Amino acid sequence: MTATRDIDALIELMAKLPGLGPRSARRAVLHLIRKRGLLMTPLADLMSEVAASARECLNCGNIGTTDICDICESEKRGNGMICVVEDVADLWAMERSGVFRGRYHVLGGTLSALDGVGPEDLSIPRLVDRISAESVTEVILALNATIDGQTTAHYIADQLEGRVTLTSLAQGVPIGGELDYLDDGTITAALNARKSL
Amino acid sequence: MTATRDIDALIELMAKLPGLGPRSARRAVLHLIRKRGLLMTPLADLMSEVAASARECLNCGNIGTTDICDICESEKRGNGMICVVEDVADLWAMERSGVFRGRYHVLGGTLSALDGVGPEDLSIPRLVDRISAESVTEVILALNATIDGQTTAHYIADQLEGRVTLTSLAQGVPIGGELDYLDDGTITAALNARKSL
Repeated sequence: MTATRDIDALIELMAKLPGLGPRSARRAVLHLIRKRGLLMTPLADLMSEVAASARECLNCGNIGTTDICDICESEKRGNGMICVVEDVADLWAMERSGVFRGRYHVLGGTLSALDGVGPEDLSIPRLVDRISAESVTEVILALNATIDGQTTAHYIADQLEGRVTLTSLAQGVPIGGELDYLDDGTITAALNARKSL
Repeated sequence: MTATRDIDALIELMAKLPGLGPRSARRAVLHLIRKRGLLMTPLADLMSEVAASARECLNCGNIGTTDICDICESEKRGNGMICVVEDVADLWAMERSGVFRGRYHVLGGTLSALDGVGPEDLSIPRLVDRISAESVTEVILALNATIDGQTTAHYIADQLEGRVTLTSLAQGVPIGGELDYLDDGTITAALNARKSL
C-alpha cells in the first residue's frame, strides 16, 4: 500500500513492463503524475489508440496498423529477397540501418526442444509458402548468434535447400569494437573470415 | 523510423519515463502490443483515470485523489507528529514500513543554492504554519543523508527551534547490511552512535 487504490494498481501494471520493477514503476508513476498534462494524458491516449489499431501482418508477422504491413504492401520492397528475423525488435533494428530493401519474415522466436517450440509455432511453413508466392530468390537468415538462433537457421536452411540462395549476416568485429572487450568466439569467427586488403 | 507513426510516437513518449531509454521503450512497447488486451488497454484506461484524478494534497503535498489526502484527513493520524520528507516516494517508503502513525510534510526537494531553490519553493512556510494549526509537538526530519538533504534539515531545525521537539532518523548499519560493503561515512556514524548491549 502506498497511495490510493488507482495509483497502486497503476504501479502494479507498470511493474509488468520489461525493464521496470516495483521500484522503478513507482518512480515512473510519480513522474507521470507530476507531468500529468504534458506526458500522462497524451501517453494514455496514444496507448489506447495503439492498443485498438495495432496488429500483426498476416504475411510477415511485422507489427503495424493494417492486416498487411506497409513493407509487404510496397511493390518496391518485393525485390525477391526475404530477411528472416526472430522478433519484431530485430526487424526494427534492420530497418533503422536502412540498408535492406527487401521484405521480412518474423519467426516469433527460435526452435527450442526444451520449451517445446516446433517449426509450426514459428511460422516456418508460411515462410516456405512465401518462397514461390513472392518469387523469392534469396533468403537472408538474420537470426541471433545464439545456439537456439543458429539451430533454427540450420533447420530453415535445410527446408529451403536448393530452392533459393541462402545467406546469413557476416560475423566479426563490430564497428567501433575493441578486441580487448570481445569474446573468444567473435575473435575466432573474425579471424576465420579474414579478408585480404 | 521503426513501425507506424503512432507506434513510433508511443515509443518516444515511453522513452521519457525515468529508467527507460529508447531501447527499453521499444521493448516495452512491443511487450504492450503483444499483450494489448490483457495489459495495454487496462494500463491506458487506468493511466487516463489517474491523470484526471491525481492531485497534490493542499496540506502536506502527498499525492492522492482528493484535495486533502487520506492521511491528513484521518483523525487518528493527528497525533502531534509530522515527518518531513523530500519527496512523495520517500513518504511511500515510510508508509510501506507501516511504523509511523503521524502525518507527513513533503518538501518537494531540497534547498539548493546552485539550482536556486529557496525555502519558499519547498513549502517550508506551510510547514511552519502547520505547527500551531495542528498542535504539533514533534517534527521528525527524514531527509536523505546527502549534503543538500542535511543542509535543508539544518535550515528547518533553525526555523522550528524551541517550538517543537526536533528529531531525525538514526544513522547506522542497515538491517542485513555487511560492513565490508558499507562506506566509511556510515561506519563512522554507526560507531559514534554505538549502543551498550
